[in-house]
Amino acid sequence: MQLVRLVRIVSSLPRLASFCSPFSSSAEGAARLLRVGDVLRESRRFSESDVVRYSEVSGDRNPVHLDDAFARTVAGFDGGRVVHGMLVASLFPSVIASHFPGAVYVSQTLTFKLPVYVGDEVLAEVQATYLRQYKNKCMVKFTTKCFRNEDSLVVEGEATTIISTLSLSK
Amino acid sequence: MQLVRLVRIVSSLPRLASFCSPFSSSAEGAARLLRVGDVLRESRRFSESDVVRYSEVSGDRNPVHLDDAFARTVAGFDGGRVVHGMLVASLFPSVIASHFPGAVYVSQTLTFKLPVYVGDEVLAEVQATYLRQYKNKCMVKFTTKCFRNEDSLVVEGEATTIISTLSLSK
Repeated sequence: MQLVRLVRIVSSLPRLASFCSPFSSSAEGAARLLRVGDVLRESRRFSESDVVRYSEVSGDRNPVHLDDAFARTVAGFDGGRVVHGMLVASLFPSVIASHFPGAVYVSQTLTFKLPVYVGDEVLAEVQATYLRQYKNKCMVKFTTKCFRNEDSLVVEGEATTIISTLSLSK
Repeated sequence: MQLVRLVRIVSSLPRLASFCSPFSSSAEGAARLLRVGDVLRESRRFSESDVVRYSEVSGDRNPVHLDDAFARTVAGFDGGRVVHGMLVASLFPSVIASHFPGAVYVSQTLTFKLPVYVGDEVLAEVQATYLRQYKNKCMVKFTTKCFRNEDSLVVEGEATTIISTLSLSK
């Protein structure tokens, strides 16, 4: 993990339903306040070693990820072997959990728009779009996007999570 | 990968649009014929080591995956630490690529319905629901499901892939 930062963006929803606060009122907990519009980001460059290790643990040994010649000639990827899309997408729960340990995934949609090649710098960005009290927890929806080399959108979708360390503020 | 098998199920779509055949007419290639209704399955039991290795390569060190006490008390998972949902979901591209090397993911939706605990046996099942010629390749949609301990549906969704080694048969 090379970069994680929290960026506050203007929320257009009413205050009552637009942010979650921590159950604890401690100074440490207060840093975990979350509002609609907040953005979390993390950048990473996937190495050849990362792709090989992911292939081993996931069992996904598709040659488009492991064989440059195959990736170019059969699958048509000009840049050679590509990073597994699901490895790129793992940045979304990773960046959410790095800010909100204990966050539980409910759903994720993913559209893979462009390949990510080994060595590309990828920026994952999740933005809170919806917050709702759910029992004693907070349901949070995020838009989820990954950019390659700062500008090309490579993966986009939406995630829904339950964060047990937050509740709606009143 | 402990089990991968191809099961032929009755197709209800017209023959012209209901199956893809390999570009090559070799006997080896012919094994890769795909029809609407076909099911691919793979079962796996994720170990503690798998979860740790996945945490390392993905960067997702959410304590619900690594800390039994946290998983039980904070997140409410009675069975302790849970396998990363995105690791469970990696079975879908894995099983597709094991039958169709070179398959490229276009999209995936995922709903995580129940937790998968370390040591649970998981059965991933993908079923072809739609086939369409796309340039010189074949677009295939699959329903994607994972079952825990043979009967409980834990993950479901849909995947869209481009398979470069298939074209629509006429």
